[in-house]
Amino acid sequence: MISSLVEVETPALIIREEVALRNIGRFQKHCDDNGLKLRPHVKTHKCVHFAKAQIAAGAVGITCQKIGEAEVMADGGLDDILISYNILGDNKLGRLRSLGERTKALSVVADNDVVVDGLSRAFETASQPLTVLVECDTGGRRCGVQTPERAIAMARRISALPGIGFGGLMTYPAVGGQSDVLGFMKLAKAGIEGCGIECSEVSSGGSPDMWHACTHDGTITEYRAGTYIFNDRSLAERATCTWEDCAGRVVATVVSVPSESRAIIDAGSKILTTDLLGLDGFGHLVGHPQARITKLNEEHGIVLCGPDDRFEVGEQVHIVPNHICVVTNMLDNAWLERKRGGMSVLTIDARGKLT
Amino acid sequence: MISSLVEVETPALIIREEVALRNIGRFQKHCDDNGLKLRPHVKTHKCVHFAKAQIAAGAVGITCQKIGEAEVMADGGLDDILISYNILGDNKLGRLRSLGERTKALSVVADNDVVVDGLSRAFETASQPLTVLVECDTGGRRCGVQTPERAIAMARRISALPGIGFGGLMTYPAVGGQSDVLGFMKLAKAGIEGCGIECSEVSSGGSPDMWHACTHDGTITEYRAGTYIFNDRSLAERATCTWEDCAGRVVATVVSVPSESRAIIDAGSKILTTDLLGLDGFGHLVGHPQARITKLNEEHGIVLCGPDDRFEVGEQVHIVPNHICVVTNMLDNAWLERKRGGMSVLTIDARGKLT
Repeated sequence: MISSLVEVETPALIIREEVALRNIGRFQKHCDDNGLKLRPHVKTHKCVHFAKAQIAAGAVGITCQKIGEAEVMADGGLDDILISYNILGDNKLGRLRSLGERTKALSVVADNDVVVDGLSRAFETASQPLTVLVECDTGGRRCGVQTPERAIAMARRISALPGIGFGGLMTYPAVGGQSDVLGFMKLAKAGIEGCGIECSEVSSGGSPDMWHACTHDGTITEYRAGTYIFNDRSLAERATCTWEDCAGRVVATVVSVPSESRAIIDAGSKILTTDLLGLDGFGHLVGHPQARITKLNEEHGIVLCGPDDRFEVGEQVHIVPNHICVVTNMLDNAWLERKRGGMSVLTIDARGKLT
Repeated sequence: MISSLVEVETPALIIREEVALRNIGRFQKHCDDNGLKLRPHVKTHKCVHFAKAQIAAGAVGITCQKIGEAEVMADGGLDDILISYNILGDNKLGRLRSLGERTKALSVVADNDVVVDGLSRAFETASQPLTVLVECDTGGRRCGVQTPERAIAMARRISALPGIGFGGLMTYPAVGGQSDVLGFMKLAKAGIEGCGIECSEVSSGGSPDMWHACTHDGTITEYRAGTYIFNDRSLAERATCTWEDCAGRVVATVVSVPSESRAIIDAGSKILTTDLLGLDGFGHLVGHPQARITKLNEEHGIVLCGPDDRFEVGEQVHIVPNHICVVTNMLDNAWLERKRGGMSVLTIDARGKLT
């Protein structure tokens, strides 16, 4: 543990524990108040420490995107895991089966027959069946079956095959309420139940719309959100959170001030990444509302100074990143600023787990 | 070692050894033929294995951007290292001094007095002086002194202070020949020599202009290039290399084909990154000239199919990334496709070394 920011070698990511815990509690309460189960996506923090804090606050389980992330979380004691991804290939299916044997509840999603058939083959002789949800494209235009009819057909196929069981429907909606989540899900669920198949969960997600999406109706049973734990510039600029709710900040050092209008910081794309998420510039410089990070090289951030900005070589600056989930993926460790003072090392356990 | 791509869990990075070695040899010969010393930047490969191959081919030493990278390379036996970055802060200066004690030749750059004074203090009692080059902004608008006069003043300061010695001038020019490298460097060098100070090296760099920049005149003594070892889409699209010269490819699996016009691959921003480098789309799909990777989420690549593209779920595709240097930084390991067949694990030794 170290006592102050001055000792931090930059660039580094600082997570303010108090803010993160407040964010966890606030959205858990929102879900509880609206009769929604919360299944946080660990892709934002990638830390067993924070996954456990989310469960302790009332989350029903966690969401992972890759088997490697789920393996790390299972090693850390998390035992109710949804992997919201189509899983393919003999190696991965073998790993998935092993994971099923050491978790209390494991579920995955699928949006096509090739995936479903592979899952069935892999779990045919397993001690307990694998729960499979059908991923539905409700307007996000990523993965997912395109129509409720196709969702019904897939639910029937999953129910009929050995080794797997139908667990419900899942979607990752378009941001900004562009998706007709309820329309799609109601049709699909009614059709599935009409076939005599139970549709126990309807899982939606996404932090940008977390305060108002799909909670006014009993259709959605579960919500998956990731970014809400730390928040970031993309959510603050869209008023989903305030700047004070942003728990993650990159601390950087001004390494050069070549001219009055330009300062160079040691945070480049290797920590901030070039993710824009529709924003202008590569992060929000705390305390410098007129300054803009206009360009990133790997190890350099180019800051265009406002008329009142006076940066000095050696000075530390704090940046709220555009997209916090990709920042944690750059780092083996971050600093956790403790509620009671001092900072300790936070290991990003599932960093870089791509498979 | 594994024998074929079918066994690779995707997404993954494959480095074709034969192509990388051919790229090393070809640019080394170009430098030798033009009387230029080559000091490759390890930021592209981040591997001791390839740094040693570059030295074996005739490079005079290596370039690193951060002390952490240099420490990894020194651990691997590399002993002539330039860190082309302003180094600030007591912790980092302490690490730099330790590094100086276990390398044959260590040099750094500086573009301001705060950095120079810190280096002098840190090396005042060291057994050998630290070599410091002055970084010059010849049009790249990143770090660097703004005028030859300022370069001369800094050379005088470096020469006068204890613990450090003036090693010459360094620049990272604007891409596309936009910089007046020779004009700036000749004025600065003449002024420095006019003060009775030797200016032994004038170091320029950058892969995009590597075949024609600054080699027709004796002013530039040393060239730093990184990307040339693997190449990437940014260099192929600009005709600095051919597609066949691209040694690094991301292998991905088609996980979903939701509609005729859209396929989803398991390579997203966590391996390809969102670096565009002025290009359209997030990588070149080998064998699919009409297809475009139009969007990336962390674990999903959205492919807009051309009229003749027929992707199948489970199929592997190969992608030449826009920017290879940032791809290696995402991965703890890549696969090395050996010249004589088979693939072995390539550890990305200096991945994520940010400080």
